[in-house]
Amino acid sequence: MSESAVFTITYFMFEVKKDSGTMPVKTDKPFVFINAAMSADGKIATIERRQIRISGRLDFDRVDELRATSDAVMVGIGTVLSDNPSLTVKSEKRRSERHAIGIDENPVRIVVDSMARIPIDSDLLKKGDGKRIIAVSESAPLEKVKQLSGKAGIITAGREKVDLIMLLAELKKRGIGKVMVEGGAGLNWGLISNGLVDEIYTFIGNMILGGRDAPTLVDGDGCKGAACRLLLLSCEKLEDGMLVRWKVNY
Amino acid sequence: MSESAVFTITYFMFEVKKDSGTMPVKTDKPFVFINAAMSADGKIATIERRQIRISGRLDFDRVDELRATSDAVMVGIGTVLSDNPSLTVKSEKRRSERHAIGIDENPVRIVVDSMARIPIDSDLLKKGDGKRIIAVSESAPLEKVKQLSGKAGIITAGREKVDLIMLLAELKKRGIGKVMVEGGAGLNWGLISNGLVDEIYTFIGNMILGGRDAPTLVDGDGCKGAACRLLLLSCEKLEDGMLVRWKVNY
Repeated sequence: MSESAVFTITYFMFEVKKDSGTMPVKTDKPFVFINAAMSADGKIATIERRQIRISGRLDFDRVDELRATSDAVMVGIGTVLSDNPSLTVKSEKRRSERHAIGIDENPVRIVVDSMARIPIDSDLLKKGDGKRIIAVSESAPLEKVKQLSGKAGIITAGREKVDLIMLLAELKKRGIGKVMVEGGAGLNWGLISNGLVDEIYTFIGNMILGGRDAPTLVDGDGCKGAACRLLLLSCEKLEDGMLVRWKVNY
Repeated sequence: MSESAVFTITYFMFEVKKDSGTMPVKTDKPFVFINAAMSADGKIATIERRQIRISGRLDFDRVDELRATSDAVMVGIGTVLSDNPSLTVKSEKRRSERHAIGIDENPVRIVVDSMARIPIDSDLLKKGDGKRIIAVSESAPLEKVKQLSGKAGIITAGREKVDLIMLLAELKKRGIGKVMVEGGAGLNWGLISNGLVDEIYTFIGNMILGGRDAPTLVDGDGCKGAACRLLLLSCEKLEDGMLVRWKVNY
């Protein structure tokens, strides 16, 4: 019985060969990866959609490095409305390094916002240096879009909902090569179900949140037939949880 | 950029000291562990609550070994109604080994079924040698309970819903020392939120299922304030996914 074990030692080692020469090269969209922290039962927030600290300082630093090395950071409007994130690079050193090579201190901050619901005083629109893009649908109220256009670039794609395939093609045209997606669950589903995600990085925290209505890593309509298959790239212990990297389009 | 890496080698190693002499010994309940397979986004079935093959042959064998070395296997009525599992030990060798030491070929099969909804012709009640227990509440229809009592032991605990604390105390009294919980999400929440679970083993499969209404590892009402904290015991690569072991009450 497991209770009697005095020591448990687990070795976890694997390697993945990646030869970019044999990978299908997608020229019509940037490299897209999702980064998220979730509980051991797959939740990214509580049932009240309140953000909870799932990871610690080391993981925050890892996320900051990912932001600083991406061309753009993308979130859904739900995440803006519930968390009001600024999505800036937190490390002064990393901002300086970006500045030193002639790029903005922060990656382009993109909000997928079909109906242009983002509050005009959102932190994302106020805080930090760098460009913003609000992606809206043709159904978004024109007056609000006009108001936003003073603070951000506007990309209109899709009739009632933002057409993510069109949006990513447009971002690629504008020179954005690498997009970091920081949620939420609905945007993650939209991107995955359209085959637009290349990799998924999840920090799995040492907690159970529970709740049939709590948002999970990927929500939306969900798979009915075949699931979206992944390839496990790596897993490592990080703080009290672990960091798992999956490849999606392979 | 990660795409350019030719080799990625990740070493994952950690050890956990477990000294049963310093562990709080709970004498009022059996050792309880949850075992489940989930997708990379925490789902245990599709949005249609259809079971999907998340793990492979090696993991099935691991689950069979866990069953064969447990005194009892427990599921919620939702799992019985949607999957109609028999919960028998599949390996003939393991059944023989149990038989050889004078115990039933299968562990006691327990269904938490507040309103006694289990169909009388369920595989669990028909297939395989060994005892069954249906745990009902005082609100269960008496006629149905009487009917079931010909096929299974009945434990009545709780007024409208099965009182899981009472149930586990009763199981302990009956000599059951180790209970394997095989879902579903509602029972998992009931047990975890009552502090009744000792360990959680999850096989994380290489797939995304998505769906805001898909059942996850732990559903129910969910945490509002503090999350239930876990201790990561081990993680190992298994087939195309990984097996993670968490300690709950520590």
